[in-house]
Amino acid sequence: MKVYGDRLSGNCYKISLLMSLLDINHQWIDVDVRSGETATQDFLKLNPFGKIPVIELDDGCTLAESNAILHYLAAGSRYINDEPFFHGNILKWQFFEQYSHEPYIAVARFINRYLGLPAERRAEYESKQAGGHAALRIMQSQLETSPYLVGEQYTIADISLFAYTHVANEGGFDLTRYPAIEAWIERIESEPGHVGMGA
Amino acid sequence: MKVYGDRLSGNCYKISLLMSLLDINHQWIDVDVRSGETATQDFLKLNPFGKIPVIELDDGCTLAESNAILHYLAAGSRYINDEPFFHGNILKWQFFEQYSHEPYIAVARFINRYLGLPAERRAEYESKQAGGHAALRIMQSQLETSPYLVGEQYTIADISLFAYTHVANEGGFDLTRYPAIEAWIERIESEPGHVGMGA
Repeated sequence: MKVYGDRLSGNCYKISLLMSLLDINHQWIDVDVRSGETATQDFLKLNPFGKIPVIELDDGCTLAESNAILHYLAAGSRYINDEPFFHGNILKWQFFEQYSHEPYIAVARFINRYLGLPAERRAEYESKQAGGHAALRIMQSQLETSPYLVGEQYTIADISLFAYTHVANEGGFDLTRYPAIEAWIERIESEPGHVGMGA
Repeated sequence: MKVYGDRLSGNCYKISLLMSLLDINHQWIDVDVRSGETATQDFLKLNPFGKIPVIELDDGCTLAESNAILHYLAAGSRYINDEPFFHGNILKWQFFEQYSHEPYIAVARFINRYLGLPAERRAEYESKQAGGHAALRIMQSQLETSPYLVGEQYTIADISLFAYTHVANEGGFDLTRYPAIEAWIERIESEPGHVGMGA
């Protein structure tokens, strides 16, 4: 299996983290978004959405969207649960991540970490702070009542949210305000097989 | 089962459409986002995310996020497929919908249809057009090669994308530019048990 990704992208890190936890053999191919490598004709054949990560199976089939890839890779493993209500709850947190978390926390981090917080994007960066803190408050509330987002079990919902949350400080978010999130980060980092971002 | 929703919201319509196709008995409770009904303490107990739709099961358990609810309700039905790669492809389109389609097409429609395109939001409305057309072009390309988004089978991925696509004209998007999308809309509307938005 091939993974096309960027080592510093949280969406791509979700894939490398799960692959490490499940010890899935794969070839990683670096793709540079900023130099336009996701917009070439060759790349668009792999993923018409023009985004990373994307995986390519040995038979040539491809799958895009980080959270969809997590479901495919985790099928049958301890990081997922097929009982419909449990499965629905995993998805609830993953759609929350893509709609209410990533567009604030990941984008603020991108503007700061990748682009160096240029003056012309400072207003946009500042505008991301309120939405990011709203998402962190929701996570904090849940993690005050359960060790993982969907209860007692570490699932791919945690992987989806961990990816950008654990580097939220790079987008200007002070996590010391969210002690239950900090404890959850330590819990995840202590899982056997855990690997850090960029490793 | 209770469904808390707004009859004109595409995210809520996803739920009423699937419930009609599967003939699921339920009680619909209207919630008005614009008057602040999703921000009350009572509503936040149902859904800490402060959003509709949310379903409440007979045992009092709740589930939020439209696409997660679709998975819960469709479990075991003909509108889903548990084979991991097929399932991953359903999810791929649903995450595409929430990240690359809804924030453009649904938001443009909201500004126009709900708010009456006020002058102070016209620039934002205009800024949504390019991203919306990018999403429609991707759908058009897929639907030129298969009758439904994930191939031969009508799935909840189609429901997720149909909800806001079939009213995209209300956000200023001319669908006559996308004949494969128009044919797909007719295909979906001819499914036995189909129900229109707002019905």
